[in-house]
Amino acid sequence: MGEVAVFAPGTASNIGPGFDCLGIAFTGLGDTVRASRAGQPGVRVAAVSLERIPTDPLRNTAALAAAAVLKRAGLEREAGLELRVEKGLPLAAGMGGSAASAVAGALAAHEVLKTRLTRIDLLVAAVEAEAVVSGRHADNAAPCLFGGAVIVAGLDPPEVTPVRVHESLGLVFVTPAYEVATAEARKVLPAEVPRADAVGQAARLALLVLGLERGDADLVKRAMWDHIAEPRRAPLYPGYPQARTAGLEAGALGVAVSGAGPTLVALALRETRKAVAAALVDGYAKAGVEARAHVAEVDTVGARVV
Amino acid sequence: MGEVAVFAPGTASNIGPGFDCLGIAFTGLGDTVRASRAGQPGVRVAAVSLERIPTDPLRNTAALAAAAVLKRAGLEREAGLELRVEKGLPLAAGMGGSAASAVAGALAAHEVLKTRLTRIDLLVAAVEAEAVVSGRHADNAAPCLFGGAVIVAGLDPPEVTPVRVHESLGLVFVTPAYEVATAEARKVLPAEVPRADAVGQAARLALLVLGLERGDADLVKRAMWDHIAEPRRAPLYPGYPQARTAGLEAGALGVAVSGAGPTLVALALRETRKAVAAALVDGYAKAGVEARAHVAEVDTVGARVV
Repeated sequence: MGEVAVFAPGTASNIGPGFDCLGIAFTGLGDTVRASRAGQPGVRVAAVSLERIPTDPLRNTAALAAAAVLKRAGLEREAGLELRVEKGLPLAAGMGGSAASAVAGALAAHEVLKTRLTRIDLLVAAVEAEAVVSGRHADNAAPCLFGGAVIVAGLDPPEVTPVRVHESLGLVFVTPAYEVATAEARKVLPAEVPRADAVGQAARLALLVLGLERGDADLVKRAMWDHIAEPRRAPLYPGYPQARTAGLEAGALGVAVSGAGPTLVALALRETRKAVAAALVDGYAKAGVEARAHVAEVDTVGARVV
Repeated sequence: MGEVAVFAPGTASNIGPGFDCLGIAFTGLGDTVRASRAGQPGVRVAAVSLERIPTDPLRNTAALAAAAVLKRAGLEREAGLELRVEKGLPLAAGMGGSAASAVAGALAAHEVLKTRLTRIDLLVAAVEAEAVVSGRHADNAAPCLFGGAVIVAGLDPPEVTPVRVHESLGLVFVTPAYEVATAEARKVLPAEVPRADAVGQAARLALLVLGLERGDADLVKRAMWDHIAEPRRAPLYPGYPQARTAGLEAGALGVAVSGAGPTLVALALRETRKAVAAALVDGYAKAGVEARAHVAEVDTVGARVV
């Protein structure tokens, strides 16, 4: 039995009013997991491309997800897998890296063992794995697995609804040269929110999904406010206000923290993406923060064998 | 100068996850306001079709809205108007009656006096008038004035976004034989909501507007949950649980309290509306509550001179 390589794209989650329920897969960056059969039952991590990635299968999201697939398929006592993990996504950046490794691990295990699990089973396996390292949520794993943009309206069972993103719209990412731990970014979230903020968030998210489907730039622009997370999280991200202002001035329709940050994601018309990318980096520079940009499109395919 | 008659349709607001931000105008029921020039400056109410409607211009929403139009147009010292109000919508029912009278009053005043106010000015005038009797909100007045379904994402200034409703979808209303005051229904609302409920509400509203635009019955069905208002309001509405269950069993895609109730609004495929209407009435009957149904479509025109 040969090796199977699975590529899983990076994802932006949260995205303004889509806090904790909207995710989008993007092109150009992702993690690759290579899996092959091993003699011993269980999952081992044979190699990782970055020293900081744990090879302990109980702390590695690719291995955890592969193990969850084995278990769900009833194969944990008989089948053995060896994984090689190649990180294309930066760590603790807010670009869905742990979800991508988990999704790639789950899909690679499924492909090597030819299990009968469904894509939703694979999503559940990836979510279980990601929960060990960064909380139980599917707004990265779901778009990573299925591609495109999705609304995740529930976890038990996973309820994933695709949102079309009009071809006129693209994405720009900018990652400043510091890290923010997901756990730290979640600690500042309020347990309760004022009713008016909850209503405002719902209304803005409705505008955002309509704007994405219709390709209505003005609507996307009016929608891109987060009433829940970003007001509390902003202090965690030095340079964010300056970068955001510069990005909007360069034509971005909206700039938001991607996932738990510190990467920012900008929604922009395709033709303005390069100018927006330059402006975002400049904005950080004005705040004394080094940053690098990534110009992307929506990845409509999702995780795939390569 | 002759008389102008304006018809303004009834509206459902709230509608499951659209609490406080989604409204839909419907066909078949509405209020009519007839306006004509009077010698004395100011607004007088010459006649009302129901004894319970106040003729005091400071307590009548049609007159309050007409007066707000005069004031915004800078005509309050010179122009006089006489109004006749014909209520087609039931009082304190949750079918947007006070908003319809206000919108009709504003538009009738505008038409008689040929002011230069915009439609947004007229909306602001209607919202001001409605605020006097039932709280400051635009999720009834906006769909009533513009027609169709709308998301109201802000009041200052009014931010109104149309949502298309697919032609396969219709509406059913059922009004039980008791009244609920808007003020009472708002008193039970929580000042704050758990963060997970706010996220859930936003995700469901996103699904609802996508479902309405796409005509995706399954999506509308999965979307029709309100995490904020209905769990607290349900005890105010005897027979609601029975009617809701019966309506869903008869094919309704969702059943929710319309506005502050007690009327319920069901979203349904057009061909199932009559069965849903009968089931809703039956459900109330099982709870010992008399009720009458109204089968409707979306009113895509909004308030108009008739």
